[in-house]
Amino acid sequence: MVKSVIDTIDFIRRLKTFNGVEDKSGVTRLAFSEEDIHARMRLIERCMELDLEVEIDGAGNIWARKSGENPELPSVLFGSHIDTVPEGGEYDGILGVLSGLEVIKVIKENNIQHERSIELICFAAEESSRFNISTVGSKLLSGKIDSEKLKKYTDSNGICLYDRMIECGFNPNYIENSQNRLKKAYCFLELHIEQGPVLENKGIEIGIVHTIAAPTRLRVIIVGEEAHSGTCPIDMRKDALVASAEMICAIEKIAKEEVEYHTITTVGKCKVFNEAINTVPGTVEFFVDIRGIEIENISNALDKIYENIKNICLRRKINYFIEVIGREHPVKLNEKLNEIIKSICIENNKSILDMNSGAGHDTMNIASIIPATLIFIPCVKGISHNKKENVQFNDVKNGLEILYNTVIFIANDKNIMLS
Amino acid sequence: MVKSVIDTIDFIRRLKTFNGVEDKSGVTRLAFSEEDIHARMRLIERCMELDLEVEIDGAGNIWARKSGENPELPSVLFGSHIDTVPEGGEYDGILGVLSGLEVIKVIKENNIQHERSIELICFAAEESSRFNISTVGSKLLSGKIDSEKLKKYTDSNGICLYDRMIECGFNPNYIENSQNRLKKAYCFLELHIEQGPVLENKGIEIGIVHTIAAPTRLRVIIVGEEAHSGTCPIDMRKDALVASAEMICAIEKIAKEEVEYHTITTVGKCKVFNEAINTVPGTVEFFVDIRGIEIENISNALDKIYENIKNICLRRKINYFIEVIGREHPVKLNEKLNEIIKSICIENNKSILDMNSGAGHDTMNIASIIPATLIFIPCVKGISHNKKENVQFNDVKNGLEILYNTVIFIANDKNIMLS
Repeated sequence: MVKSVIDTIDFIRRLKTFNGVEDKSGVTRLAFSEEDIHARMRLIERCMELDLEVEIDGAGNIWARKSGENPELPSVLFGSHIDTVPEGGEYDGILGVLSGLEVIKVIKENNIQHERSIELICFAAEESSRFNISTVGSKLLSGKIDSEKLKKYTDSNGICLYDRMIECGFNPNYIENSQNRLKKAYCFLELHIEQGPVLENKGIEIGIVHTIAAPTRLRVIIVGEEAHSGTCPIDMRKDALVASAEMICAIEKIAKEEVEYHTITTVGKCKVFNEAINTVPGTVEFFVDIRGIEIENISNALDKIYENIKNICLRRKINYFIEVIGREHPVKLNEKLNEIIKSICIENNKSILDMNSGAGHDTMNIASIIPATLIFIPCVKGISHNKKENVQFNDVKNGLEILYNTVIFIANDKNIMLS
Repeated sequence: MVKSVIDTIDFIRRLKTFNGVEDKSGVTRLAFSEEDIHARMRLIERCMELDLEVEIDGAGNIWARKSGENPELPSVLFGSHIDTVPEGGEYDGILGVLSGLEVIKVIKENNIQHERSIELICFAAEESSRFNISTVGSKLLSGKIDSEKLKKYTDSNGICLYDRMIECGFNPNYIENSQNRLKKAYCFLELHIEQGPVLENKGIEIGIVHTIAAPTRLRVIIVGEEAHSGTCPIDMRKDALVASAEMICAIEKIAKEEVEYHTITTVGKCKVFNEAINTVPGTVEFFVDIRGIEIENISNALDKIYENIKNICLRRKINYFIEVIGREHPVKLNEKLNEIIKSICIENNKSILDMNSGAGHDTMNIASIIPATLIFIPCVKGISHNKKENVQFNDVKNGLEILYNTVIFIANDKNIMLS
């Protein structure tokens, strides 16, 4: 049984050594920063210690391979990312990379047989914090963007993403070989913390993800009329703030109505253009984030939002502008992989939840090329992208076990048909 | 009849010369600025041309007196202010000062008899734009503040109000003589633009003000919990923005319920502490402005606001803080003066509206010392504190006529008892 060969205490110790931070101080390892480059070096060293074949592709993705008994069979890929948001947590991304390495280490040290080759991928620049674009490595690898596109993105110091990649020694123009390597692979698995509170609240150990709900985003500007709070009667006002407040309440109501369709709507950023306590606000700008797992349901929610904004503005005789600033499609993950993971969870007495991911992950890009899925473990209070991010010992243990058993199962079964 | 002696065309020409600005460029004459000082000089020159006895008191208020036949009788005072907000209009304040001067000019040039002396006051620093304190001249004059208090206020360049007054040649420590002069006066009249849309909307020529509704102000902070818009389900959120939106809607509803009690509630300034589209907002700060004409009714509205905020936060399990940052009392104006003005309007075929002032004016301070009232004329679309501020020719004409006739009536009637 696997439980005897995975040492979770030792794994967590090595994860903390890798992050190299004191508890509670947070991890800052922005994409392609010095800290990121140093962490990549540490990762490559650990891969070399295990005698893995290491390659770095033009996107900066790190590949580490252990050949199987039958190396001509398509490989099993697994991994995640090691870059972080500013003052991020110790588990977001890095858990999926180091647990992949741990799986290979345990397989190697215990001479566990595997027919297929197994390969760890550490994707470059998953977080959008620095360059305002997320999952750069997996987007390039899956052909969602090309190298030209990278020239448009800069960080807050004006450093261009493309230039910085070249400077770090990666040439995103040469990604074709890696793209072919991906296409030939058998499947991809990503172990990640949930980054939400659902598993913890329900007391469930493993989340099996069926859809990644990419966001649609609206920018809404409401234009009423400024007026003096003392001299303009309530029925003569064109108050952009009260109109927006009505819309924000309506958008929450829509989210509640759409729960059964797994669509959720949020007003995040909101700016009231008014500095005076005694002025009725004339202009408000807010942004709506809509996530769902079916395009049709997302469209229904969008229609309701438009309808509400229109009606509130008509009734209040004020103007509005709506700009769609993003419309990504939800990504379905591989159901056969999910069935395998489910069986392994049942065999190992782990409670499971079929769920969706509201946040984006590298898996969403890889899933367009090969069968892929995402495994969640709970994180404390659902907190992530924050130095308070934490994961319970047993949840790390469960994640490691399920990833290990899934990799071994798939690597040894030549008959399963995933697609 | 007065209509033959007041030349409104000439008056408006002289008002525009006084402001010295091109049409549509706005008037910027901040309290105690160089522009304000120059305008005071122009005003004093115009007073001297009419052989008035001019004095400037320790607060910087300008007094200009024309003695009556019976100079030992208490005088009739009238006036307003000439300072403005940045890029303000051509009528706010200055209308009341120059029309007062016009009244004296017409009386003088036509040798109109008046028993009581008549005195124009131009109050210093009515607008709060520069030093964050309003009606400085009339507050000092009526003893609402003393010179020590002025040391606490500074402009955005760190210039202290007290120091600036001394530098301009005014010594607010020596205001007692002027305070006594005010106490001995008979009454005070202020002609002002409405700064709201009510008169224009109702098509009424003259507003007679019964109460000045000083504001009560609250600072409200709502503290929920930040969360990821994709991963945190709608029923697990503690969304500070939706909670605030519910409160803002409730505060508008309260304003509608309280219309019959002349209480109005507004959320002006509002800040959402969140920069990310994909984050459920954790903290929102907003300010509530409550105005009414009866303390009891203001308290009722306040109670409703507290109750709503408490209930919304209880239901949503989020925290709130409320700070009362201002609580001024409404000021009742002199009803006998209002009856006189009403009679004069009726005699002169002017339509009248009994109304309240939601905005503060120097009259509210003077009314605590002597009988005082405020006369409104309409302004275009209710716009004020803005370079688009405008007043129709006929409304200027009406204002001048009513002020002129009221001053002459009171100055010649020794028998009316105002208080």
